[in-house]
Amino acid sequence: MPPISRDYNTHCRCLQVESRIIPPDTLRSIKLFPEGPHCPDTEVIAGLANGAKVCLNPHSAWVKKLINFFLEKQQTGMTSKKRA
Amino acid sequence: MPPISRDYNTHCRCLQVESRIIPPDTLRSIKLFPEGPHCPDTEVIAGLANGAKVCLNPHSAWVKKLINFFLEKQQTGMTSKKRA
Repeated sequence: MPPISRDYNTHCRCLQVESRIIPPDTLRSIKLFPEGPHCPDTEVIAGLANGAKVCLNPHSAWVKKLINFFLEKQQTGMTSKKRA
Repeated sequence: MPPISRDYNTHCRCLQVESRIIPPDTLRSIKLFPEGPHCPDTEVIAGLANGAKVCLNPHSAWVKKLINFFLEKQQTGMTSKKRA
């Protein structure tokens, strides 16, 4: 069996991605890792209320909608936070 | 001085947010914390290449553009990742 090639990426966090929709209220965080030298894929990792971490599919429309939902949602409940 | 009121939130992570634009290539991660019982604000925390963490303003257009840029960018460089 050939050795692992030199440019085998060893730093992608997600081996597989979950395409099923995750109910927003079970989500505690969403972390985005842009593609880079460490990994050729943008990776999206959700932190669930039960402490589990789930890799999401950055291509699926619902992931984009979910992220934009959280960012847009903020518009209605504007609270005064100091701006640097 | 009155005591801290019972519903004083103690779990927001960001006391102030950075509105200045951060160059995408200095970013290693972006973490989104949806508003919830712990904090009335959606919080966006960027992890920089130098290890620093910076709270971003979820209302600023460039933050939304940046996140969508990373998600869209993925479209071009589609790599085959197993889908659960």
